[in-house]
Amino acid sequence: MKKPTYHILVCNSFRGAGDANGACKKKGAPQLMQYITEEATDRGLDVAVTSTGCLNVCSEGPVIVIHPDNLWYGKVETEDAIDEILDALEGGEICEKYLISD
Amino acid sequence: MKKPTYHILVCNSFRGAGDANGACKKKGAPQLMQYITEEATDRGLDVAVTSTGCLNVCSEGPVIVIHPDNLWYGKVETEDAIDEILDALEGGEICEKYLISD
Repeated sequence: MKKPTYHILVCNSFRGAGDANGACKKKGAPQLMQYITEEATDRGLDVAVTSTGCLNVCSEGPVIVIHPDNLWYGKVETEDAIDEILDALEGGEICEKYLISD
Repeated sequence: MKKPTYHILVCNSFRGAGDANGACKKKGAPQLMQYITEEATDRGLDVAVTSTGCLNVCSEGPVIVIHPDNLWYGKVETEDAIDEILDALEGGEICEKYLISD
């Protein structure tokens, strides 16, 4: 296999009952994931896009993580947000706007 | 949030019908994930362990990925295999035995 340069994780966690803080899936993660995949492909990025179980920062959902940079982004709710994050990735920068603070 | 130093991904993919090559879940991924979590905690590693959807290397399942090192390990079928991989991680080394070749 050819390892991807970037690995974008998209939390797709859901709760069968109850609401709590999170549930990225309910907040639109599946649609986000599809858009990320399409957009990354259009940009020619060497990336794998993978759905995940709970990333344990539910209050920040929808959450995505970009490795190897170990960037954790939250409140990624729109295609525009994805565009900004991918623009930063292509530019070798961090998109501070959506970065989950330490 | 405090970002973890390491992020260990455990493929938990399954297929409702059909068999194909893969289905890491059927090959024991949930038990592996529990063991990784317990063992990493015992070792005091600063790690997040996350289940994922299909990582698209089904023939190598069960598959785990360790970031930020971008290490893709396959045929990780036993607790001994996990021990070897975590030993390597603690030693700052790569566990060649389970590495999925390029």
